[in-house]
Amino acid sequence: MPRTAEYEAKQTKAAVTKTAAYAALSAKTPIEPFQFERRAPRPNDVAIEILFCGVCHSDIHQARDEWGGSIFPMVPGHEIVGRVTAVGSSVSKFEVGELAGVGCMVDSCRVCENCKEGEEQYCNNPGCTLTYNGRDKNGEVTQGGYSTGIVVDENYVLHLSDKLDLAATAPLLCAGITTYSPLRHWNVGKGSKVGVMGLGGLGHMGLKFAHAFGAHVVQFTTSQNKVADAKKLGADDVVISTDATQMAAHAGTFDFILDTISAPHDIASYLHLLKRDGVLCMVGAPDAPLSVPVFSLLGRRASLAGSGIGGIRETQEMLDFCAEHGIVSEIEMIPIQKINESYARMLKNDVKYRFVIDTASLKNGSVAG
Amino acid sequence: MPRTAEYEAKQTKAAVTKTAAYAALSAKTPIEPFQFERRAPRPNDVAIEILFCGVCHSDIHQARDEWGGSIFPMVPGHEIVGRVTAVGSSVSKFEVGELAGVGCMVDSCRVCENCKEGEEQYCNNPGCTLTYNGRDKNGEVTQGGYSTGIVVDENYVLHLSDKLDLAATAPLLCAGITTYSPLRHWNVGKGSKVGVMGLGGLGHMGLKFAHAFGAHVVQFTTSQNKVADAKKLGADDVVISTDATQMAAHAGTFDFILDTISAPHDIASYLHLLKRDGVLCMVGAPDAPLSVPVFSLLGRRASLAGSGIGGIRETQEMLDFCAEHGIVSEIEMIPIQKINESYARMLKNDVKYRFVIDTASLKNGSVAG
Repeated sequence: MPRTAEYEAKQTKAAVTKTAAYAALSAKTPIEPFQFERRAPRPNDVAIEILFCGVCHSDIHQARDEWGGSIFPMVPGHEIVGRVTAVGSSVSKFEVGELAGVGCMVDSCRVCENCKEGEEQYCNNPGCTLTYNGRDKNGEVTQGGYSTGIVVDENYVLHLSDKLDLAATAPLLCAGITTYSPLRHWNVGKGSKVGVMGLGGLGHMGLKFAHAFGAHVVQFTTSQNKVADAKKLGADDVVISTDATQMAAHAGTFDFILDTISAPHDIASYLHLLKRDGVLCMVGAPDAPLSVPVFSLLGRRASLAGSGIGGIRETQEMLDFCAEHGIVSEIEMIPIQKINESYARMLKNDVKYRFVIDTASLKNGSVAG
Repeated sequence: MPRTAEYEAKQTKAAVTKTAAYAALSAKTPIEPFQFERRAPRPNDVAIEILFCGVCHSDIHQARDEWGGSIFPMVPGHEIVGRVTAVGSSVSKFEVGELAGVGCMVDSCRVCENCKEGEEQYCNNPGCTLTYNGRDKNGEVTQGGYSTGIVVDENYVLHLSDKLDLAATAPLLCAGITTYSPLRHWNVGKGSKVGVMGLGGLGHMGLKFAHAFGAHVVQFTTSQNKVADAKKLGADDVVISTDATQMAAHAGTFDFILDTISAPHDIASYLHLLKRDGVLCMVGAPDAPLSVPVFSLLGRRASLAGSGIGGIRETQEMLDFCAEHGIVSEIEMIPIQKINESYARMLKNDVKYRFVIDTASLKNGSVAG
C-alpha cells in the first residue's frame, strides 16, 4: 500500500517519551517505581505500548547481579507484548495499531556468520543487544518491559496473533522460544522419547511443545503434587526424580532431555538416562558450574549441550506455531506493585507457571505515564 | 574356497593352551610374570599368536583399580596384533597365517539396537565384553594382550594390512579407533577447524587423522618442546594452552575439539573456544568429574560430548583407511620386562607416543610359552 507524505509525517512525529516503569536501582534494593525516557523512533523503529510483560527467572538473577556485570538502574522484562503506536519512516513490517512482541534481544551486528544465518542470539560482534541490562550500538543502556512503552528496530519485533490470549502470549517471547528452539534443533518429534527437567516457566512450555511435536514426554519433578498438572499439560509419564527406582527404570532410554532448572543441581543421574547419541540440553543457567562425570558421556556417546533463546526468524516461526496450535503459557497475572512478592514466590517455585505483569497497573498506579 | 574334512580337522584340533603373560596380581603390586590357559577355539573362534601389544593409559587405570571393579589377576592389553594360528570349524573370515588384530572388545550381545547398528561398543546387554578385565557370556574372566596368544570370536577380530609396520599398527586398535570414530561421527573434514587437546597416545593419532581428513588442525599442549613434533605430525598451528593470550586469539572459532587428556583438567577455557554448534568431545577418561560452567554452553549452543572406541565395522574401516594413507602410530618398542618402567614414564608423559610390547620378549624371557 503506497504511503502519503502526510501519513509518513504523522508516523514519524513522535519524540522522546517519558516512560513509567519499575526498576532495580541496585542489586540489594527491591524493584521500585522509576521513570525514564524512551528514544524518539528512528526510521527503522517501531514504538510499542506495552500491555503485558512476563516475569522471567533471569530478571531476578540480573536485578540482583547474580551473573555479574549488571547495569543500574535496571528496568527488567523481556517478555513484552503490546500494540504499535508509531513507526519510523522506513518501517515496512508493522503498522500502527498492530499487535507486536519483543523478546530477549533488540539488535545485533547483522553481519557476522551467526546473524546472517538467522541466529542473532549468538551474534559474534560482540553479542546481541539484550532488551535490558545491555548497551546498544550507541552505548545507551537498554531498559526492558516493566514499563509502559518500548522503541525497537522493526527487525527485532515479532508479529503476534490476535487469536491467542495476549497476556498468556507474553512468556512465549522468552520461555517459549528458549524451549522451542532446542527441541527443534535436536529434531524432537514423533518417535522421540523426551524428558523435561523442572516444571516452571520454561519447563511447562517445553512440556507443551514436546507434546505438540508428537514426542513421548516424561516430566521430571521433585514434587508429587505436580504430577497431575504435568499430565494435564501433556506429559505421558511423570518421574519423581528423587526416587532412585523410578529413575533407574528409565536408564539409557531418552533421546533428548531438556533441563530447565536454573538452580545448581545434580546432573549425573540424568545423564545416565540418555541412550546412545542422546543429548541433555541446558536452558536454565545455574550460576555455579555443573559437575559432570565423564564416563556418563563416554559410555553412550552422549552430549551435554546448552541453548540460548532462538533467532528472530525462529521466534516468529514459534509464535506462528503457537497461534496454529492454540499454545500459550499458563500464567498468573499481577499488577506491577506485586513484583517483589512475585520474585519471592518464584524462588519458592510458587507460581503456575509464569507471572505476567498487567501494565495497566503502571498507568493507573503511583507513577504517572 | 571349499574346505576339506581334513582341513577342518586340522584347524579345530587345537586344545587349551598354556599362555605366558604378564599380569597385575593386585591393584598395589607391579605387573609381573604370570601364566594362564587360553580356551580351545570354539567353532567361531580365531586363535592368534600375539606379536605386538600397545600399552594404553587405561591399562594403568585398570591395573591399579582407579576406575573401580578391577578383577585380579589381570593381564592388561587391548591393542593386539599378531598372526592367526588356528581357526574354528565355522570361521569364514580368517585363514591360518593371516595377520589379525584385536581391540578393546571381544564380544557383545549382538541383538540390541546398538549391536545391530554396528555400534557394539555401546552394547546394552549389559555392555560389550572387554578384552581384559571383563567377563564373557560364560562368566569367564577375559585376559588381554600382554601375553603370547589370544582366542577370539572371528566377528571381533580385525584384518590388518601387511603394507604397514605391524608393531606401529597395534595402537590403532584402541588409540586409533578412539580418535578416528568421533572425528568421523562429527563430520570433521575439509573446512573444519579442529583442536586436539593432549599429545600422547590418543592425541597424536587424533592429530594424524584430523590432518588426513583435511581439517585445519590446532594442537593444544602445555609443552613448548612439543611444538615442533606436533607440526611434524600434522598440526597447522600449535597453541600453548597455559598462555591466555594465545587461547583468547582462538575464542569462538573451533568446530570440534578432541580432548584426549585422561588426567583431571580445566575444561572451561576450551569450551570458550568453540563456535556456534561446536562440540568438545572427551575420549580421555578422567576419574574425577569435570566442572562445566553452563554459560559456556548456552552462549553458543555448544556441546560437551564423550565417545568410546568405535564399532567393529568402523574399526575395520579405520584400519583400511590407515593402510591406504600410510598412517600408523609413533611408537617406542619395549620388552615386556620394561612394562612397569613404561607405566612410570607414561605418567610423566615421557613417551613418543605409544609404548608397544614386543611379545618375543615373553617367549624368550623368564616365563616359558
